Amino acid sequence: MSYHIYLAGEIHSDWRAELEKQISEELDVEFIFSGPQENHEKSDAIGETILGTQPDLLYRDIQSSKINNLRTQLFLRKADLVIAYFGEKFRQWNTASDVSLALAKNKPVILIRPENLHHPLKELSERANVTVDTIPKAVQVLKYLFD
Amino acid sequence: MSYHIYLAGEIHSDWRAELEKQISEELDVEFIFSGPQENHEKSDAIGETILGTQPDLLYRDIQSSKINNLRTQLFLRKADLVIAYFGEKFRQWNTASDVSLALAKNKPVILIRPENLHHPLKELSERANVTVDTIPKAVQVLKYLFD
Amino acid sequence: MSYHIYLAGEIHSDWRAELEKQISEELDVEFIFSGPQENHEKSDAIGETILGTQPDLLYRDIQSSKINNLRTQLFLRKADLVIAYFGEKFRQWNTASDVSLALAKNKPVILIRPENLHHPLKELSERANVTVDTIPKAVQVLKYLFD
Amino acid sequence: MSYHIYLAGEIHSDWRAELEKQISEELDVEFIFSGPQENHEKSDAIGETILGTQPDLLYRDIQSSKINNLRTQLFLRKADLVIAYFGEKFRQWNTASDVSLALAKNKPVILIRPENLHHPLKELSERANVTVDTIPKAVQVLKYLFD
Amino acid sequence: MSYHIYLAGEIHSDWRAELEKQISEELDVEFIFSGPQENHEKSDAIGETILGTQPDLLYRDIQSSKINNLRTQLFLRKADLVIAYFGEKFRQWNTASDVSLALAKNKPVILIRPENLHHPLKELSERANVTVDTIPKAVQVLKYLFD
Amino acid sequence: MSYHIYLAGEIHSDWRAELEKQISEELDVEFIFSGPQENHEKSDAIGETILGTQPDLLYRDIQSSKINNLRTQLFLRKADLVIAYFGEKFRQWNTASDVSLALAKNKPVILIRPENLHHPLKELSERANVTVDTIPKAVQVLKYLFD
Amino acid sequence: MSYHIYLAGEIHSDWRAELEKQISEELDVEFIFSGPQENHEKSDAIGETILGTQPDLLYRDIQSSKINNLRTQLFLRKADLVIAYFGEKFRQWNTASDVSLALAKNKPVILIRPENLHHPLKELSERANVTVDTIPKAVQVLKYLFD
Amino acid sequence: MSYHIYLAGEIHSDWRAELEKQISEELDVEFIFSGPQENHEKSDAIGETILGTQPDLLYRDIQSSKINNLRTQLFLRKADLVIAYFGEKFRQWNTASDVSLALAKNKPVILIRPENLHHPLKELSERANVTVDTIPKAVQVLKYLFD
Repeated sequence: MSYHIYLAGEIHSDWRAELEKQISEELDVEFIFSGPQENHEKSDAIGETILGTQPDLLYRDIQSSKINNLRTQLFLRKADLVIAYFGEKFRQWNTASDVSLALAKNKPVILIRPENLHHPLKELSERANVTVDTIPKAVQVLKYLFD
Repeated sequence: MSYHIYLAGEIHSDWRAELEKQISEELDVEFIFSGPQENHEKSDAIGETILGTQPDLLYRDIQSSKINNLRTQLFLRKADLVIAYFGEKFRQWNTASDVSLALAKNKPVILIRPENLHHPLKELSERANVTVDTIPKAVQVLKYLFD
Repeated sequence: MSYHIYLAGEIHSDWRAELEKQISEELDVEFIFSGPQENHEKSDAIGETILGTQPDLLYRDIQSSKINNLRTQLFLRKADLVIAYFGEKFRQWNTASDVSLALAKNKPVILIRPENLHHPLKELSERANVTVDTIPKAVQVLKYLFD
Repeated sequence: MSYHIYLAGEIHSDWRAELEKQISEELDVEFIFSGPQENHEKSDAIGETILGTQPDLLYRDIQSSKINNLRTQLFLRKADLVIAYFGEKFRQWNTASDVSLALAKNKPVILIRPENLHHPLKELSERANVTVDTIPKAVQVLKYLFD
Repeated sequence: MSYHIYLAGEIHSDWRAELEKQISEELDVEFIFSGPQENHEKSDAIGETILGTQPDLLYRDIQSSKINNLRTQLFLRKADLVIAYFGEKFRQWNTASDVSLALAKNKPVILIRPENLHHPLKELSERANVTVDTIPKAVQVLKYLFD
Repeated sequence: MSYHIYLAGEIHSDWRAELEKQISEELDVEFIFSGPQENHEKSDAIGETILGTQPDLLYRDIQSSKINNLRTQLFLRKADLVIAYFGEKFRQWNTASDVSLALAKNKPVILIRPENLHHPLKELSERANVTVDTIPKAVQVLKYLFD
Repeated sequence: MSYHIYLAGEIHSDWRAELEKQISEELDVEFIFSGPQENHEKSDAIGETILGTQPDLLYRDIQSSKINNLRTQLFLRKADLVIAYFGEKFRQWNTASDVSLALAKNKPVILIRPENLHHPLKELSERANVTVDTIPKAVQVLKYLFD
Repeated sequence: MSYHIYLAGEIHSDWRAELEKQISEELDVEFIFSGPQENHEKSDAIGETILGTQPDLLYRDIQSSKINNLRTQLFLRKADLVIAYFGEKFRQWNTASDVSLALAKNKPVILIRPENLHHPLKELSERANVTVDTIPKAVQVLKYLFD
């Protein structure tokens, strides 16, 4: 039996690779990982890549967002667990949205965020199941669940 | 017959009062409005106000968030429509969360945000029904619905 | 106690007025009626009316559709019963969509369509509760329900 | 892990075979494909094939539709993703219905339709996740999701 | 505040009138009562009454059932509580179906049946909340709830 | 990929074995079959078998029904498709209930019943997807779905 | 507009009357209150009161529980908010169950329990929205919501 | 095909090992078992183990509960069947909560409890499917389901 984990959040660091590496070292369980497009340029351009040049930046974003939302919805529906990483940079409102859609579907959620982001994330932290401030701590939570 | 509108988002301006005023001038429909606690100090302090002094700021926030989430959940469940306002200030991740919980419950959502916030809100805008950049435009949408 | 009836479908005839008139003559029950924007020009233009001129017809339609979908979702959620009218003209795919969203939400649906549209509507007719070919027959169904 | 894709829509061209061929060339993921009965005669006759001659064309259609709806419901429930193709011919109201039932069940949907069908499909396009005008573009979307 | 009670089951006795009379004598709560068409001839004929003569009895029943199911679905959705009466006569499979649809929607159900029908109803009785063998006992249950 | 079919209904004939045999001959698809306890004595006695002698027949039935309902609920939840057989004998209210719980969960349902049971089953037939009068016809329906 | 509050929990003190009194003094909002049967003897005896003497205490409890569960289900479905009081006495597993059913239905929950019950209630407290240790504090929470 | 059984309840005895042993001896079906953390110290300490020392026992419990709730939610969502054991010791309110969340999700539940706990568990027993007083009887129930 395998578990599907959706990795929401920051795409400007290699936290997913780091998390997956630590999990594979610590746990002997089959996990399937999914998440958003991590290539930022590709993510912002996908609408025009597929549909051709759009009349302006607003429509360029509209078309890319539709495809990115399709991706998120497809994989989030399959997820047994969601781990979301909030970094210092960017507003990441789509991360807050992904987490909340998962919560509304009764999917367990672990938040990772630096301590100093605690205050702006306080309501979301209390809606999620668990909040930690580092990747190794998230791995420890998984270790507690699956050992 | 009345409609319940939940007003999510920024609490540091009088946009709710402005919106309600314009709606009452434009439309002859009974609306019930609800939203988060708009007194920021009161909102941040409510945990300690009720439960007493907490060990530090993190725990102070945990207790206040629980009560603020209770408030949001209570009124969001009653809402027929959600209007969310994203301002320039603050990260407003709880606003993105409120909107997404409403979307997951199949509630129609109108986003209001200044044009320059378009890019970071692009996925959320495409999940919501309609996005406009001013309060009068949101009122025009309501006018179109209820005239 | 009142019942909310959503009147989906053709906007190029006065079938709604005719149906409401006959219902008020035949039944002593309070009904609240809602439906799509019946002014076709207004419906197609609403995106630009609110958001300003769009780059071309495709984007004009995208913005109008978002607002029309908001309207449909808002009122369809309130409906206890849906009556949909398919006329000879236009493809009316949004009518088929409205009906199906209502069916998925377990809302009872009455279809009205001319006999000669029977074949292309056959799957939808069997998903709906009842299909009739004239407005007076739909009124007779309501009479049977509420007498 | 495999993904189930339901292919709704036109049955009068070989678009499904074409799409499946391109997907298998482009992607190394196991997909299970399902869809409506593609043999039009068989689809229209299935009611009488199983239940015997019906008294008239209307009942012939009623009985066939019930069996076709059973088929759609069975496979649509299993689908992780729906791709719907709207062609020039026929009104395809059942396609609009299949898509909408899938959307109501929170399943991601890609629409394929020729540009000139844009206007009558505009509301449905905005309810779906992504709309493209050719099969290769739909394949590019899948490539973006699964690469 | 009023409560909507759907009265499923036997239509060949005046149990509904008797139940409503006893409730009005015992309780000072506003109840809205609904149920199936109690005029058996009218119920069996409604399809032909509205749609005209059908080819034979089977198709006559198909059309009447669709309209009766519409009625049941409309009122069952509004019900806060379902009371079902199983009499000696007839197989009343639609009553068992109404009750089960209500249970699946998490609506509380009281069954009334003569003691000697206990065995064939045993699974349904255990799915329902409460089973009694007379109308006055059902009224006593309501009295316990609302006093 | 396999499909789970729940076989509701009559336990006093070997229709399940017959259906499974015909399916295996006609179709090259992996099916998992489940259904109620087919040994009538065992089914009626299971409460006392596990919990010991009960004070009377009514409690004997109550305890057996609880265990039979557990069985039905467990397997019905797993089912992709339900086939229900109504025979001449017994009132089979639990079969009508199983079918209706499945319908409420949006599971496709095929009814098998002799022609002469058509009238008492008419509402349930119209709630189900397809009704046939023999096992071979039900197998033909499956053949149409899975060929 | 009124709000329905279900008051789960201890029936061996007058906490409900006290809470309702304080709420009416503090808030100018219309609340409808419901809860379990507060007369313990009546609650334990209701099965026999309605159905007659049962064979022994176990069956006496089975029949009373069915009627008490009916009551809880009826009113809990109507509730906008649940307030649960855990006292020192009794195991109150049905209170923990009522709260959890409400949480599963996405209803906001406030727990009241003496500080010394914190440890055994810790998981439930974190599933609920807010936990306080006195009635006046629960009233303060309501005051914060509705002022 | 395998079935996932969540084993809720007492963690101070080896009932899970005993149950799993008896099941493996009696049944030739693949079961996946999950349940809460059975190491009580580890369970109470997990919050501090991962997040570091908390300011007091209350916050120590809050943080541990969040992680224990995450674990329960993750595995309960996967469960096809829940078996809950109530022992003499401890109040086990989280067990009553786990069972009720499972019931609200329409998952079948078997309760095991010593006869003398019958009265305080009576409402929960009637909400669950089956209640027995020993592990071997629970195994007999599974044998009846899967033989």
